[in-house]
Amino acid sequence: MSPSRRQAPVSEIGEFQLIRALTRGFPRPGSRTLIGMGDDAALLAHPSSAHLVISTDLLVEGIHFSKNTASFYDIGYKAAVANLSDIAAMGATPTYILVAVALPSSVRYGDWKDLYRGLSVPCKSHGVQLVGGDTSASHSSLFLAITIMGQVEPGHALTRGGANEGDIIYVSGSLGNSAAGLACLTHQTSRGKISTMRQPTKFLVRRHLQPTPRITLGRLLSSRRLASAALDLSDGLSGDIEHLCQQSRVGALILEASLPMSPHLLAYASQVSADPLSWALHGGEEYELLFTVSPKKQHSLEAAVKQLRIPATAIGVITSRRSGIQITHQNGRTQKLEPKSYVHFS
Amino acid sequence: MSPSRRQAPVSEIGEFQLIRALTRGFPRPGSRTLIGMGDDAALLAHPSSAHLVISTDLLVEGIHFSKNTASFYDIGYKAAVANLSDIAAMGATPTYILVAVALPSSVRYGDWKDLYRGLSVPCKSHGVQLVGGDTSASHSSLFLAITIMGQVEPGHALTRGGANEGDIIYVSGSLGNSAAGLACLTHQTSRGKISTMRQPTKFLVRRHLQPTPRITLGRLLSSRRLASAALDLSDGLSGDIEHLCQQSRVGALILEASLPMSPHLLAYASQVSADPLSWALHGGEEYELLFTVSPKKQHSLEAAVKQLRIPATAIGVITSRRSGIQITHQNGRTQKLEPKSYVHFS
Repeated sequence: MSPSRRQAPVSEIGEFQLIRALTRGFPRPGSRTLIGMGDDAALLAHPSSAHLVISTDLLVEGIHFSKNTASFYDIGYKAAVANLSDIAAMGATPTYILVAVALPSSVRYGDWKDLYRGLSVPCKSHGVQLVGGDTSASHSSLFLAITIMGQVEPGHALTRGGANEGDIIYVSGSLGNSAAGLACLTHQTSRGKISTMRQPTKFLVRRHLQPTPRITLGRLLSSRRLASAALDLSDGLSGDIEHLCQQSRVGALILEASLPMSPHLLAYASQVSADPLSWALHGGEEYELLFTVSPKKQHSLEAAVKQLRIPATAIGVITSRRSGIQITHQNGRTQKLEPKSYVHFS
Repeated sequence: MSPSRRQAPVSEIGEFQLIRALTRGFPRPGSRTLIGMGDDAALLAHPSSAHLVISTDLLVEGIHFSKNTASFYDIGYKAAVANLSDIAAMGATPTYILVAVALPSSVRYGDWKDLYRGLSVPCKSHGVQLVGGDTSASHSSLFLAITIMGQVEPGHALTRGGANEGDIIYVSGSLGNSAAGLACLTHQTSRGKISTMRQPTKFLVRRHLQPTPRITLGRLLSSRRLASAALDLSDGLSGDIEHLCQQSRVGALILEASLPMSPHLLAYASQVSADPLSWALHGGEEYELLFTVSPKKQHSLEAAVKQLRIPATAIGVITSRRSGIQITHQNGRTQKLEPKSYVHFS
């Protein structure tokens, strides 16, 4: 694409050319996609044996992302992951995505292509087709509204409401990286490509801008019925464990000593004299899975994640509802774990 | 609700209370809604025999609506109809809706409730359940992104691509009312409830703010395979007939003398010395169906719509692709019909 074309306003590009351009990076429509983009609605042949999972997510400039810390590619990439992660948290296989975008007039055709390229990369990795959308002007900020669909075997979906007293609480990956990555980006004066960054910044920024949706883990947990409850970490551990406990009508005890933290997180925290625990407990947008496992299934779970090389760590235990949500610190003291809502930008 | 509560910022109301409040006006979850609001995603048992229809629509303040000419109730009502209309255009039965809203801090709890009440009224009429959504702050305008789902018998969906040379072109209802209703609202200095307005304004403003999705007609056309192609009038007849012709690779001849115009439209146009034809040809947001019928099925179509008392008028005929899109005026002259894109606000 010529540089001048990249600079053209999106409004100057014809509708059908836009549709061709935006669907380019996504998987080609399969036999179940009877009508994709371009009609009043998409027409899909849903497999008769599966239940349908659907979720919608809104991303607003200045609230969920800032063009100061993320490129158009990054914004698209992360928006796709946030949605894929909701499907992972249900134990489902993602299938289709619909993308609605409101664009300020400052957005160029090249930016718009970068946004869709970012959206397409994680979708392509998971075979997710783009089947619908809407594009509008915006007099103010950039808005992205994504709807994602998936499918799961009847009776196998993971919910937030199934945890029982005595279940072990697990988390995938390590905690706090995304929030620390945002701190790196916010405090850096010059920003460039992730690939040119040095550690520990490189790792943390990548976790913030290009997190991994835990689709494989979600499918493992649901297909083999290994988890009693699950959700994805979008608000931060302290807030999300509360959601799980409310829906399951239980309490939880978290062990600080068990919380998985990456060497990069610890190195960066030490470098900037910050408390890594605060990032691990309250940092949002991790897109790791928080799930509970009955003690009877713990052995099977541990063997299965080891075989698939998926990092998963036991971080506590489900308690009774009246015990509330507590944390046992490294010094042995146990106290109430207060949720802190994760604020993106404000 | 107390007046002071209506004035409270939405951010002061707890998440679960908001979910309770917003689902209130919608139909209660049926047996196929396994999980509705409140988990990572909704879980639905899609009937195995049906194909799935899905569409997403973005509505942006200052582009698609203005708070100067529409209340929060009106904004919600029309947003729901715009989406229901996409399902009608596919000949499908609407089933579920997901609503994402970005709210400026000026929006009060009472406004927010009015918005959802507006959304719920047309949804309830058609048995459409609210199964998901997202709410975010916005630093600027109000944004609404709606995803709607529906179902249709395999092989029965109406598309834009099935029109054949010789098919009769039909439109439901009458044309131009919505655009004229917007003109009424824009030129009025004081605005009040529609019920207190006088004719012809009352009729036209209602068609603009609270249009009717043609679900029954869509179902009739698809279930009995009466139409060869269909879409809903959202961009205006001149723009939408072009969409149909492009997808079907045909041309069209429209007869000006046949275009259905309401007595209220004619009265208002005469009152303000405007050309009603321009509203009828280019006015958008009608949410009427534009569809084509094979001559062999014309008799069945006419009998069926008469029996169901659905207004439908033959306005032209499908021609060859190379003839393009033409209009024969009342004076007998035939010329090219140039599409004018409908601009909401700008």
